Amino acid sequence: MAIVVQNVVRAGQSVIDRLAAAGVATVHEAQGRKGCLASYMRPIYSGAQIAGSAVTISAPPGDNWMLHVAIEQLQDGDILVFAPTSPCDNGYFGDLLATSAKARGCRGLIIDAGVRDVRDLTAMGFPVWSKAISAHGTVKETLGSVNIPIVCAGAAIEAGDVIVADDDGVVVVRREDAETIAVAAEKRLEAEEAKRERLAAGELGLDLYSMRERLAEKGLKYV
Amino acid sequence: MAIVVQNVVRAGQSVIDRLAAAGVATVHEAQGRKGCLASYMRPIYSGAQIAGSAVTISAPPGDNWMLHVAIEQLQDGDILVFAPTSPCDNGYFGDLLATSAKARGCRGLIIDAGVRDVRDLTAMGFPVWSKAISAHGTVKETLGSVNIPIVCAGAAIEAGDVIVADDDGVVVVRREDAETIAVAAEKRLEAEEAKRERLAAGELGLDLYSMRERLAEKGLKYV
Amino acid sequence: MAIVVQNVVRAGQSVIDRLAAAGVATVHEAQGRKGCLASYMRPIYSGAQIAGSAVTISAPPGDNWMLHVAIEQLQDGDILVFAPTSPCDNGYFGDLLATSAKARGCRGLIIDAGVRDVRDLTAMGFPVWSKAISAHGTVKETLGSVNIPIVCAGAAIEAGDVIVADDDGVVVVRREDAETIAVAAEKRLEAEEAKRERLAAGELGLDLYSMRERLAEKGLKYV
Amino acid sequence: MAIVVQNVVRAGQSVIDRLAAAGVATVHEAQGRKGCLASYMRPIYSGAQIAGSAVTISAPPGDNWMLHVAIEQLQDGDILVFAPTSPCDNGYFGDLLATSAKARGCRGLIIDAGVRDVRDLTAMGFPVWSKAISAHGTVKETLGSVNIPIVCAGAAIEAGDVIVADDDGVVVVRREDAETIAVAAEKRLEAEEAKRERLAAGELGLDLYSMRERLAEKGLKYV
Amino acid sequence: MAIVVQNVVRAGQSVIDRLAAAGVATVHEAQGRKGCLASYMRPIYSGAQIAGSAVTISAPPGDNWMLHVAIEQLQDGDILVFAPTSPCDNGYFGDLLATSAKARGCRGLIIDAGVRDVRDLTAMGFPVWSKAISAHGTVKETLGSVNIPIVCAGAAIEAGDVIVADDDGVVVVRREDAETIAVAAEKRLEAEEAKRERLAAGELGLDLYSMRERLAEKGLKYV
Amino acid sequence: MAIVVQNVVRAGQSVIDRLAAAGVATVHEAQGRKGCLASYMRPIYSGAQIAGSAVTISAPPGDNWMLHVAIEQLQDGDILVFAPTSPCDNGYFGDLLATSAKARGCRGLIIDAGVRDVRDLTAMGFPVWSKAISAHGTVKETLGSVNIPIVCAGAAIEAGDVIVADDDGVVVVRREDAETIAVAAEKRLEAEEAKRERLAAGELGLDLYSMRERLAEKGLKYV
Repeated sequence: MAIVVQNVVRAGQSVIDRLAAAGVATVHEAQGRKGCLASYMRPIYSGAQIAGSAVTISAPPGDNWMLHVAIEQLQDGDILVFAPTSPCDNGYFGDLLATSAKARGCRGLIIDAGVRDVRDLTAMGFPVWSKAISAHGTVKETLGSVNIPIVCAGAAIEAGDVIVADDDGVVVVRREDAETIAVAAEKRLEAEEAKRERLAAGELGLDLYSMRERLAEKGLKYV
Repeated sequence: MAIVVQNVVRAGQSVIDRLAAAGVATVHEAQGRKGCLASYMRPIYSGAQIAGSAVTISAPPGDNWMLHVAIEQLQDGDILVFAPTSPCDNGYFGDLLATSAKARGCRGLIIDAGVRDVRDLTAMGFPVWSKAISAHGTVKETLGSVNIPIVCAGAAIEAGDVIVADDDGVVVVRREDAETIAVAAEKRLEAEEAKRERLAAGELGLDLYSMRERLAEKGLKYV
Repeated sequence: MAIVVQNVVRAGQSVIDRLAAAGVATVHEAQGRKGCLASYMRPIYSGAQIAGSAVTISAPPGDNWMLHVAIEQLQDGDILVFAPTSPCDNGYFGDLLATSAKARGCRGLIIDAGVRDVRDLTAMGFPVWSKAISAHGTVKETLGSVNIPIVCAGAAIEAGDVIVADDDGVVVVRREDAETIAVAAEKRLEAEEAKRERLAAGELGLDLYSMRERLAEKGLKYV
Repeated sequence: MAIVVQNVVRAGQSVIDRLAAAGVATVHEAQGRKGCLASYMRPIYSGAQIAGSAVTISAPPGDNWMLHVAIEQLQDGDILVFAPTSPCDNGYFGDLLATSAKARGCRGLIIDAGVRDVRDLTAMGFPVWSKAISAHGTVKETLGSVNIPIVCAGAAIEAGDVIVADDDGVVVVRREDAETIAVAAEKRLEAEEAKRERLAAGELGLDLYSMRERLAEKGLKYV
Repeated sequence: MAIVVQNVVRAGQSVIDRLAAAGVATVHEAQGRKGCLASYMRPIYSGAQIAGSAVTISAPPGDNWMLHVAIEQLQDGDILVFAPTSPCDNGYFGDLLATSAKARGCRGLIIDAGVRDVRDLTAMGFPVWSKAISAHGTVKETLGSVNIPIVCAGAAIEAGDVIVADDDGVVVVRREDAETIAVAAEKRLEAEEAKRERLAAGELGLDLYSMRERLAEKGLKYV
Repeated sequence: MAIVVQNVVRAGQSVIDRLAAAGVATVHEAQGRKGCLASYMRPIYSGAQIAGSAVTISAPPGDNWMLHVAIEQLQDGDILVFAPTSPCDNGYFGDLLATSAKARGCRGLIIDAGVRDVRDLTAMGFPVWSKAISAHGTVKETLGSVNIPIVCAGAAIEAGDVIVADDDGVVVVRREDAETIAVAAEKRLEAEEAKRERLAAGELGLDLYSMRERLAEKGLKYV
């Protein structure tokens, strides 16, 4: 039952970078409002905005052995995505693992559990989105799996899917949809830019989006 | 059932500004320890300290249509106060709505739900106190109401009430009490200043507040 | 039942400072992965890393009277450690109490409840680790105890135990173990430094820690 | 600030009983999907279905003094509705208070906090909807108020409002709307009865409610 | 994006019934400790133990329109499995929907949200496992999808997967593994029966499972 | 670090039985409102009311090996008290372990984690108070300790302390205080019986406890 899948197909780096540039909220809209991880996933520091291919890890509560195994599977531009098999806040990952992951080109960690050494991780510029921050470490006794499909913070993720993360949280894009969604996201960004100018000039969304008639039809009353 | 109340009486801007200067904790004390919103309401960035008249919004889970309607009701110096009709973490509000609200003089948003585009909102200096940060957006299908009495994060709020918000959270002051509370808050600030100096000099609260006798009466034992 | 214990034995200041320098995660490992407070205890600002002798406080929900009593018991280098007798998020502690505590050499506060005036506390450089931030203040009506054994955020703490706190959270070290743990922590730091260099150079943890054989024995399959 | 309001207008007993018979979910629908208390309010035993006029209580965390004061204000058919001024799970109410309340005709307790002696309360047939069950008792040191407007479990409630409670939770009906809502609820019950028979016979809601066309218009695809 | 998948392959009814008989905990063990839904999913009444093929539903917060659509897709022996697209406690399902579902042979509902009319559902013997009980109903304005892959309470579920539910919670078995897991579960039940007798007779697990040597090797000390 | 303490002093069985008869709420009051475990600890079925000597267990998240070790340490009349070293909802304990524990005279389990096979445990009459119910089982890979001091659900507990548990929750009494608290609890029960009769007859708590004067002194106003 404990396996490491080694040949993972990834999306192209340029499309991944375009998704990073679009950011989480725009990507989420562009793919029809789906793929967000739970809102309890928070960055350990503000301002990071990344994307990368998921290297997935499934491991037992309180055991981080598989993180060492997963790091060997990293390619330049990847993101580690970790889900415990049952809820756990332990600090599975700290500055030594980050040093190792970074040396292999890893762009960050998404972990539905705890992380520690956050001051060091911040100083290193290694971004993490986690459910908890906890100094409580882990053991290395029980196997898990790497690059199998997982559910992380409420979202189904497969190895090679594209992860986008910023201050708003984390979203997953199916690898095969990455190009389509990147295009749709860029189109949204352009449209938003035009709207932003008009809204800044004082035009109302009610007019910009022609909402007044539909509101009246639905029965909104002004008193 | 879906209504927009248009004529909202507001407190004077100068009394509102005095409440902003006093800050949340002092205002809360000054009005007899009441009016705080739940402590899960957190600012998206540190350091903002604002006050303004509430424009209230009640809307269904996952639907932000009424925010567009509410923005038209904003006057210079107002604060948007949003409560979903049932608990919801969706990101109801982002940088486009903030651009529009800011263009109408809005000072910030209090939302018992989620917000997104927090990097942009921070860059714009548009402060938000929310229950969650979430990239998960909303639809525009179902009506709600604007400027009706709401319960937001455990506090009853009416349109035109004064909202004070800072790093400690959010407190509401009834519009008709604003002047009285501002005076009481300023009196507290003065009294605190005098106490702060004596405490900084090493005097004990036990002596400053003459607590020793009452502690002994209640039965406190030193061993 | 309400008592103040006055003669508390403390660890030596130099060993306390060595524990502060090691930090929470390393101290936690050094003492066999125990002593962490619950991960919901978060610092009100980033970057503080302290240690000190615990002055413990047990008090009822919504009543901060005992904090005034406790401050008189502070010695230079101490840390206040507060546990309510039942869960409570009220803001028990603000800038006036911090001014008083600081005047007596207090290094910080650990509170399994709420704190307020966080902007002022941050400006003063008075660090607090708390369960909540809340402007909602407290009364002074009911006694509690000072320097009795307490359970704070899931950890048993006695007066004079050493508290270490940083961005990763809070850990308690029994006073009598402080020297031993300081030595063990420093040994870990040295060992980690050597490993960090090798990992940064691209060596894998799988090789550095000789994990491959044991993983195979347990049955890990590469596919 | 601590007051007891003594003259509370109540709805008529027959309309209250009709609301009890309709039950919470139906009453909630009948008044336009509003007035539900938070879903964490759970009955201590299954099967009770009551309604009554609210006697409201606001009291500090961990202090149940005001419950004694409130019991004197009870009239036959009333329901006690308790909200702490900040979140608290303490067991504020047990079998002695229930004995006293029952002797005055009280039909039950709604408490956004804890209750205890639940085995005795169950044996007595005194229903309680609470946020928590906790043996942890309270003190009697600090005043609160009786029959003032409160927010209980997210709902604004005034003394004399009608409370309806059953296994689905708790809903509040404004006193002045009680008659209208009772009529609307009874109309719903009749309509539901007719639908129930058709659905039980195998007719689909899609047909019974003529939904197919609107679903197609909105774009639902069958594949 | 809103689709209804109509041709869903199901496991055979006899294997499904064998999984029901084995129960959730045994099935979970038999498939290598995976597939459990989150432990917050609780039955509305005790004692039900069911299995069935999943008809999956994905729908927006506060909108139960798709439940009507899903009921048409039910076959005898199916279980409805509902996941909102973002967390929501609303009561999406009550006795009318249950009447309709039951008329089509539905065995129960798994819902990562709220349910209502629990007294009626209990009287009907229609079992539900839910995250919440709430009288707060929903609207019918926004589309979702039926029989697409969903994540429900932390578990990835596809239409046609086998759902097993009892007082311990809910577990999902991939349709294609159902036969294998049923066999493994039955083997476990037999083995457990033999162990149960020996344990009841006073034999220790330490001896029955020959644990003493391995405990000593790992370093357990008796003092 | 992993030890089993074998010689545990216990309180006498008759005093333990007297504490069981008094129940949790009365014992909690009798010892000055302390010792309650967190209110999230709930019985798996209603109506059990037990007391016994604690056999304590500390074990890692997701690993129930030490429960087997602890069962050997049980004496007739004991209660197992389990605390994970970090929060975990896994089902650590089921009907096989209960069969074994019961064969050795164990009266029940208190577990700050999950339990499973609750239908079987209920049928066996083996009471459990737990934080969660979960079918998700555990591994047997990592050591913990038995009969060391633990913190369980926020309360410090030592082996041999007396645990009292009923529908209101769980309370711990220090072994050396057991006799004193039993006497105090029985005195309370008698006093309560007298009060219950007077309250049932309609006398008010305000009069029975002579509260009116003190309420007036504190400033309560009737309006």
